[in-house]
Amino acid sequence: MDAELKALAREVNSRLRELGLTLATAESCTGGTVAAAVTSVPGSSDVFNGAVVAYSNNVKNVVLGVPVEVIEKNGAVSSAVVEAMAAGVRRLTGSDCAVATSGIAGPGGATADKPVGTVWVAVDVRGSVSTHLLQLKDEGREINICTSAKNVLSLLLEKLT
Amino acid sequence: MDAELKALAREVNSRLRELGLTLATAESCTGGTVAAAVTSVPGSSDVFNGAVVAYSNNVKNVVLGVPVEVIEKNGAVSSAVVEAMAAGVRRLTGSDCAVATSGIAGPGGATADKPVGTVWVAVDVRGSVSTHLLQLKDEGREINICTSAKNVLSLLLEKLT
Repeated sequence: MDAELKALAREVNSRLRELGLTLATAESCTGGTVAAAVTSVPGSSDVFNGAVVAYSNNVKNVVLGVPVEVIEKNGAVSSAVVEAMAAGVRRLTGSDCAVATSGIAGPGGATADKPVGTVWVAVDVRGSVSTHLLQLKDEGREINICTSAKNVLSLLLEKLT
Repeated sequence: MDAELKALAREVNSRLRELGLTLATAESCTGGTVAAAVTSVPGSSDVFNGAVVAYSNNVKNVVLGVPVEVIEKNGAVSSAVVEAMAAGVRRLTGSDCAVATSGIAGPGGATADKPVGTVWVAVDVRGSVSTHLLQLKDEGREINICTSAKNVLSLLLEKLT
């Protein structure tokens, strides 16, 4: 695993432990990479409840409860969808905090207004939600996913500080 | 990402595509690593619907529908639990195939009869389920998780061949 990602995951585990908070993730484009990073840390089961990787829109709707209209109106890669994904996984897993991702990891899937590297992130701490648009330089699918995951953990740490 | 894990994920993607099948994962000890590997492959959204990382027993029960009695009777690290996790995520995501993991990645969590490296894996292809007990040599949490994920993908490939 990327050393910087692992270091951020260690910081997130420590911070959650200090604050007595639990975390869940709802991941589309990152495909479970954020969950895998957080759970790579020994003892993470004390602060991490679980994750939903919602690759299909059906899973976003049926499992996370993102309304079909919200997906149709805004597109899956949107502020409204990641906000609903985070709220959904927080409720589903009974967690204090959640992060959510939806974006274009590439090489396929880009559109004129959403190029590869466009990633929406939501950070939800007990219902206080912020969403963030990342416009990453396209460095290939695997690095795009890893960079997205690092951004997610950094944004969560900011909100927890 | 580990090169061997990535190569196995590529093979899994190809095999699913050839057979016209979709996949989901239900992961406890692997924490999303199997999903992250499968979705590291371009075009994986055609064959991969999603995943549930069920770290807490509550998530195994509430999200995946593993009965509390099954967890209490067998323990979370058991053949019965991974079988129910796989069936649960297959149903939840509407997928043809599912894999599930529950085990002791270490360094904590070991018991007298379940040392670090004890991992149960289920492979469910359209309701035809096999479960497998891995007894890995403890090489540290991160390698244990990676080795488990590689075994999961190998077992799935065997069943799909």
